[in-house]
Amino acid sequence: MSAEFGFDIRARDGAARRGVLSTAHGAIDTPAFMPVGTAATVKAMLPESVASTGAQIILGNTYHLMLRPGAERIAAQGGLHRFMNWPSPILTDSGGFQVMSLAALREIDESGVVFRSHLDGSQHRLTPERSIEIQHLLDADITMAFDECTPFPATEDAAQSSMALSMRWAARSRGAFRKRPGYGIFGIVQGGVHPALRQISAAALRDIGFDGYAVGGLAVGEGQETMFRILDETVPALPAERPRYLMGVGKPADLIGAVARGIDMFDCVLPTRSGRTAQAFTSSGTINLRNARHADDQGPLDPACACPACKSYSRAYLHHLCRCGEILASMLLTWHNLHYYGGLMRALRAAIEAGALGDFVAGFHDAQARGRAAA
Amino acid sequence: MSAEFGFDIRARDGAARRGVLSTAHGAIDTPAFMPVGTAATVKAMLPESVASTGAQIILGNTYHLMLRPGAERIAAQGGLHRFMNWPSPILTDSGGFQVMSLAALREIDESGVVFRSHLDGSQHRLTPERSIEIQHLLDADITMAFDECTPFPATEDAAQSSMALSMRWAARSRGAFRKRPGYGIFGIVQGGVHPALRQISAAALRDIGFDGYAVGGLAVGEGQETMFRILDETVPALPAERPRYLMGVGKPADLIGAVARGIDMFDCVLPTRSGRTAQAFTSSGTINLRNARHADDQGPLDPACACPACKSYSRAYLHHLCRCGEILASMLLTWHNLHYYGGLMRALRAAIEAGALGDFVAGFHDAQARGRAAA
Repeated sequence: MSAEFGFDIRARDGAARRGVLSTAHGAIDTPAFMPVGTAATVKAMLPESVASTGAQIILGNTYHLMLRPGAERIAAQGGLHRFMNWPSPILTDSGGFQVMSLAALREIDESGVVFRSHLDGSQHRLTPERSIEIQHLLDADITMAFDECTPFPATEDAAQSSMALSMRWAARSRGAFRKRPGYGIFGIVQGGVHPALRQISAAALRDIGFDGYAVGGLAVGEGQETMFRILDETVPALPAERPRYLMGVGKPADLIGAVARGIDMFDCVLPTRSGRTAQAFTSSGTINLRNARHADDQGPLDPACACPACKSYSRAYLHHLCRCGEILASMLLTWHNLHYYGGLMRALRAAIEAGALGDFVAGFHDAQARGRAAA
Repeated sequence: MSAEFGFDIRARDGAARRGVLSTAHGAIDTPAFMPVGTAATVKAMLPESVASTGAQIILGNTYHLMLRPGAERIAAQGGLHRFMNWPSPILTDSGGFQVMSLAALREIDESGVVFRSHLDGSQHRLTPERSIEIQHLLDADITMAFDECTPFPATEDAAQSSMALSMRWAARSRGAFRKRPGYGIFGIVQGGVHPALRQISAAALRDIGFDGYAVGGLAVGEGQETMFRILDETVPALPAERPRYLMGVGKPADLIGAVARGIDMFDCVLPTRSGRTAQAFTSSGTINLRNARHADDQGPLDPACACPACKSYSRAYLHHLCRCGEILASMLLTWHNLHYYGGLMRALRAAIEAGALGDFVAGFHDAQARGRAAA
């Protein structure tokens, strides 16, 4: 439990990398998808079921956990791993994104942000130093620098000043981080959809020096094409030997395109949230199980899938559960979706190792197109 | 999968019996508790997890399943066992109780009942013949006669005429039941809290002849003392060699008292519903996990329990999940509660086999009293 924090790139295919990230709580094969465990639970899943989908690391939310049950409380329970019975690595976000998207009455100044809880209106303060302290209390293997997530759309001036503030906060975050064997801190590139700002941000982070580099402020409405363009221009500015994490992304096609551009890590609520709204990811596209056409379908959700939802139940049964709003619908579809994402990442890693990523990407898009044609 | 339907009493202790009920889909050790799987799912549980708690039979609801997804649809899917991935025995209720408690605009006459669905207001008709047909379509191992559940309180006159109607419906139910190897039908004793009516009802059912006998119309507000008094007077009027089922019961102390009075089978939503409202059953009483006193408690829910909720999580974590309304709270507490009920039935069977039921009952009440004193 005290391995050095490190990143070992085992294979490359174009810009894509197949690596192993070592942390205090275990190793992570990359490219990796991190299921989101907002409130110390990946919703509707037992932790051992999450692991069975191939997930080796999950994400926890500083904002939610500082409000409930409280970071000091989790520390007194032995940290987040022990609290939620997830013995494997955990990455925590810094709280910056949720303060912007969830909290009320935010006031930002140079020192940090004061906000009111979306739960009970109570007032709280987050600074780079406090965010890093919270993530330390949670015992996160990977701590994220505290930043301001630039809104989209933003003028270049607004994006510039927001990014500059995030870079000053990044330096303070790095300074507040207490280095321990197996633990690391990532900086976050900001700069909106403005390539020049992204370059400045990446250079600022390189100067500070981090264990890994995240690309933030994307997947906020700019569209896949713009996102890929920003990645094309930003990723080469990041240190080649460090892991790269695209925050809050995304759909399967987003992950594939980002892996091809050199991204190693992802997190997104999409597979878990979709599992609670009757949406299932399959090799031939997304399926809405509330649709009446599944009501008498004795076939499995995805014949190509070996998850419990696909092995033991019919589409008709899953449709029934969704229509009834049964908890088991959320349990089975979340499991399926995480299994799908886990399988996708495994396939991407294998394709990179085989130097066959191009074929894999083409095959993926062919299957999705055939699925759309058949739907 | 074609065993003869039968009941074998292996041991007795006073009025209590330890038996084995054989059905088309397997054997059931009695006394047995049947988790309720209303809409073709025991809420918040995978079926294999239900089985892991010791449950060998579950209950399905004719009323809910006829409305959604429909009995013919389940039959086309190969029956309820296959539809919901529960390969073990299933008992279905007749729909009578839910028509009274859930449906709108009920009109009862000699032939049956017309009602409007609580889901969409659509009009439906249930007769003894249609109820038995639905249960046949569901492939229930144990079919229940269609009855009118007498409201409580009811005058003796009202209870008498309701009981008499249920007995005429019981004869029609028996006539409509298609006997197959391993499948059986139970009659239901009615008569409210009036011992004389219970005697008349029991005699009427004996004359018709059933594979098992249920006591209905209890646990509707009459209180434990009255319920036990009715059992004391009713159970001896039931055929000794047939299984006896107390419907809709109950709390752990209710089950223990009823087993001591010769009841073999139970069903109740209490362990599953309580699991979704932060209530946990333990050897020392019921615990409300929303209570703030658990917020920092690193101990397990019940040190004496080996279920996943108790083995891998603290009270503080379960408290946190309950406060957040997380699905995992329902999953873990339902699992715990069914594990508790499964363990209670296993202990009752062992006590009967050992001729030590009296000691077991005394020990149970002592532990609960100690728990109350410590709370």
